[in-house]
Amino acid sequence: MKFVRFAEQSAVCQGVIKDNTVEEITGDMFTDWTYTGRRFLVDDIKLLAPLEPKQIIGIGANFVKHPQERPETLPQIPVFFFKPVSSVIGPDEEIVIPAGIEEVKFESELAVVIGKETKNISKDDVLDHVFGCTVGNDVTAPQYLHEDGHWMVGKSFDTFTPLGPCIETDMNPLAVSVEAKLDGDEKQNSSVDCMIVPIQEMIAYLSHVMTLQKGDVILTGSPLGAEMTRAGSTIECEIKDIGVLKNRFVKAKQGAASM
Amino acid sequence: MKFVRFAEQSAVCQGVIKDNTVEEITGDMFTDWTYTGRRFLVDDIKLLAPLEPKQIIGIGANFVKHPQERPETLPQIPVFFFKPVSSVIGPDEEIVIPAGIEEVKFESELAVVIGKETKNISKDDVLDHVFGCTVGNDVTAPQYLHEDGHWMVGKSFDTFTPLGPCIETDMNPLAVSVEAKLDGDEKQNSSVDCMIVPIQEMIAYLSHVMTLQKGDVILTGSPLGAEMTRAGSTIECEIKDIGVLKNRFVKAKQGAASM
Repeated sequence: MKFVRFAEQSAVCQGVIKDNTVEEITGDMFTDWTYTGRRFLVDDIKLLAPLEPKQIIGIGANFVKHPQERPETLPQIPVFFFKPVSSVIGPDEEIVIPAGIEEVKFESELAVVIGKETKNISKDDVLDHVFGCTVGNDVTAPQYLHEDGHWMVGKSFDTFTPLGPCIETDMNPLAVSVEAKLDGDEKQNSSVDCMIVPIQEMIAYLSHVMTLQKGDVILTGSPLGAEMTRAGSTIECEIKDIGVLKNRFVKAKQGAASM
Repeated sequence: MKFVRFAEQSAVCQGVIKDNTVEEITGDMFTDWTYTGRRFLVDDIKLLAPLEPKQIIGIGANFVKHPQERPETLPQIPVFFFKPVSSVIGPDEEIVIPAGIEEVKFESELAVVIGKETKNISKDDVLDHVFGCTVGNDVTAPQYLHEDGHWMVGKSFDTFTPLGPCIETDMNPLAVSVEAKLDGDEKQNSSVDCMIVPIQEMIAYLSHVMTLQKGDVILTGSPLGAEMTRAGSTIECEIKDIGVLKNRFVKAKQGAASM
């Protein structure tokens, strides 16, 4: 099932995509929903980010080029970070390059959506706690990453977390490739087999730190090939089972973050 | 006005504290509320964290010992970090030391609650966007801080962000001292004049990165004197205008976070 959110007149609606049609639903997509009977052509509506995440967690530098290059031991403390929910945008919205800088980095990622309360689980139980997956773009301004390793500012600007186009619930997140095309040229394309910390280990570990909740989104890392890019370019992040998340980079109109 | 949340039977209620009484309110404390007419003695109810934050932002290493030791220039990129909303507990709840470690650090802090959408504001406008303040404890497990400066795991365990006892809306956050007593002994007591990045500059800067929202909480840094402590000890974080936030440390019953 491919769940989406979309704007219809001035209302925010939910639906399920079937071919070129969105069938509207009402209720909580995670637990209890029904069809309203209204249908729209996908081309006639504006898709939004497929959920308003409760929290967003990312993992840093999680891909090698080939599966056989994965390190023999997992990192003792993975490089996790949070992104603010205020940074989320949907498909076809503009990614705003902050005032004062010319370039930012795209990072195409598999975004896992947690479906229920998740605490102290084993890796074998992880997929039972996953509601579905979407595509994420962990946009980053390296110019604002603190030299001592604190990534908060450089990853938190408004528009820096495109998500979409849908949440696919009928797929195996352990058997996909994560791709990106910049202005039509392939820049990223790696199987999740190239992850250093695999998805199940990642989420099991997190569940021993914090109680993950319905609607939390985990950005599972970006393949090699992410690049800096400028206003005017278009990034298409893609996972074949889910779809294409396309956004254009533009310049900011307002003042830079500075002390 | 001192806003609180409290448990009454199995319901979560909101109220306003006046002396030893809580007068229940209904509605949105930020914008539009009324008294219900019900009153409770403070001693008869269980206070909860005074809000469910939308997001929690902290700032690292933000205090010097004496105001005259403040550096002449502000840091170009402040050390900001997020804490998860899942880590929030209220007054008198237990802080759980994660399995596998014996000690964690307390950090008493002034917690600023944002009252409305805040984007690209100047420092002179910051106080207009502050709803009120509460006391926060930015509990940290330094054993889980990544050596490359990523603090996420060490600051994100469940119970690691006590908040309370109330949100005081009638105070000047620029003229308070932040205190902590461990088992009755004073450990922290510094004026906010000892902050390296002052509150107004901090929030104005953040507003040029992200859109702060109603219910976002900003932990403004902890005075010198924070220490490691063990199960069985009691920490009282205090800001005179707001009150005392008291929590006891206990051992975890379940497994450690490990790969």
